[in-house]
Amino acid sequence: MVVSEGIVLIGAGNVATHLGAALRRAGYDVKQVYSRTEASARTLAERLDTAWTTCLDEVRADAGLYIVSIKDSAFGEVLPQLTRRNASALYVHTAGSMPLSVWEGLADRYGVLYPLQTFSRRREVDCSEVPFFVEANSAEDTGLLCRLARELSKRVFMASTEQRGYLHIAAVFACNFTNHLYALCQELLAKHDLPFEVMLPLIDETARKVHELSPAEAQTGPAVRYDENVISHHLQLLADRPDLAKLYELLSKDIFRSTLSPPSPR
Amino acid sequence: MVVSEGIVLIGAGNVATHLGAALRRAGYDVKQVYSRTEASARTLAERLDTAWTTCLDEVRADAGLYIVSIKDSAFGEVLPQLTRRNASALYVHTAGSMPLSVWEGLADRYGVLYPLQTFSRRREVDCSEVPFFVEANSAEDTGLLCRLARELSKRVFMASTEQRGYLHIAAVFACNFTNHLYALCQELLAKHDLPFEVMLPLIDETARKVHELSPAEAQTGPAVRYDENVISHHLQLLADRPDLAKLYELLSKDIFRSTLSPPSPR
Repeated sequence: MVVSEGIVLIGAGNVATHLGAALRRAGYDVKQVYSRTEASARTLAERLDTAWTTCLDEVRADAGLYIVSIKDSAFGEVLPQLTRRNASALYVHTAGSMPLSVWEGLADRYGVLYPLQTFSRRREVDCSEVPFFVEANSAEDTGLLCRLARELSKRVFMASTEQRGYLHIAAVFACNFTNHLYALCQELLAKHDLPFEVMLPLIDETARKVHELSPAEAQTGPAVRYDENVISHHLQLLADRPDLAKLYELLSKDIFRSTLSPPSPR
Repeated sequence: MVVSEGIVLIGAGNVATHLGAALRRAGYDVKQVYSRTEASARTLAERLDTAWTTCLDEVRADAGLYIVSIKDSAFGEVLPQLTRRNASALYVHTAGSMPLSVWEGLADRYGVLYPLQTFSRRREVDCSEVPFFVEANSAEDTGLLCRLARELSKRVFMASTEQRGYLHIAAVFACNFTNHLYALCQELLAKHDLPFEVMLPLIDETARKVHELSPAEAQTGPAVRYDENVISHHLQLLADRPDLAKLYELLSKDIFRSTLSPPSPR
């Protein structure tokens, strides 16, 4: 254990919930949970068997590490109040798109601990497989955060603020946008009396494939062949859904474009 | 075995390769492989330890079932020549977007056997998990194809031509478009010296999640919260890639739109 004075979690959303559970399992003392919302604060505190508060002035001043997992738009309000409490502690946030410099002028020791995963409260996640990306304002605290992250996960990397920004965008494409394609599937199938479950083997294989082949090598379907018969037939069937037709056309053209340029190396 | 006279495969691409292997494993006599391309015909015939031809006039006339897995645009040329050979056989194709009626006037007994999966020659696929969608022009042959498909897979369904069209579109979204999002990720990460492998746990979890939660329930990330800070930061980072920025904006708006309407039932 690299933080003997205990940890306070600022935020009680999906990331805080999963991170808190992983820290507890690793033996850490999670001393307190703060959330603006009482129900969230209490729920997570009960899961972690610890104290909670909805008032930043009541956040304990004696922790060694404060982990901030809140909506990016709340940073401006929360950070200055939080860092007043304890001048010697280490402060980190878990946001992909927030720079390290968001802490500048507010604390002496600060960093970022970014877990690249999609967390939902209703699903258990094996934290040991989650890639963590670490950054801090000193070599010492970079080392400390790496050691902490290695207690939670097998996959720990250092990443600059700029790299983390691109990792976050990549995660939006690979997870949020992908999941939205699944949602559009479900909508389309339901309309034609077909259950979404029939797509699961295909969804699984599509994910498994890119463990072995690069995405460019793994591509199949009408767009990569630019099979105009199929594409125009599909666009006809989507005539009553211009939003889907537009997306279909844009992605098909982009798939075909990418076959014309050499795939980037794995 | 429901076809005792043996099977001829017309086409030697990804679908024919996987289907041929599954039929062999189920004990079927694959009598011959036809492909326009000699290398493809020979490669698949060798894998299945059978004969091959590149000439439609040499396709054997004594099979009980002809399975056509060729590019949709070749149907018009191949089907009339093929069906001349044998008047009593059952003819099926494996294309999601081709109607049953493509056989009308060409054969007496015909149908469709559509496997909903992404097949690449370099990857083994467990055919028993692949959903097969069956359609035929008689109840008798619908039954025959269902029994045949059940020898290959646990998941056999009947689907009309119209339903199959929407299944194919859904497959394009869930597989080809999803895989393209993976490809865009890889491209973006490579440009910033980050390996694509760091995305795999996220890709896997995104696919696993929709086994338990509906895609709408599973959604996370900046678009579903409509976190304008993150979204505009990401669009800035994508300023040199207007194609990705456009896709990012379109999908984010559509994710947010879908939070405003109730999710469709699972």
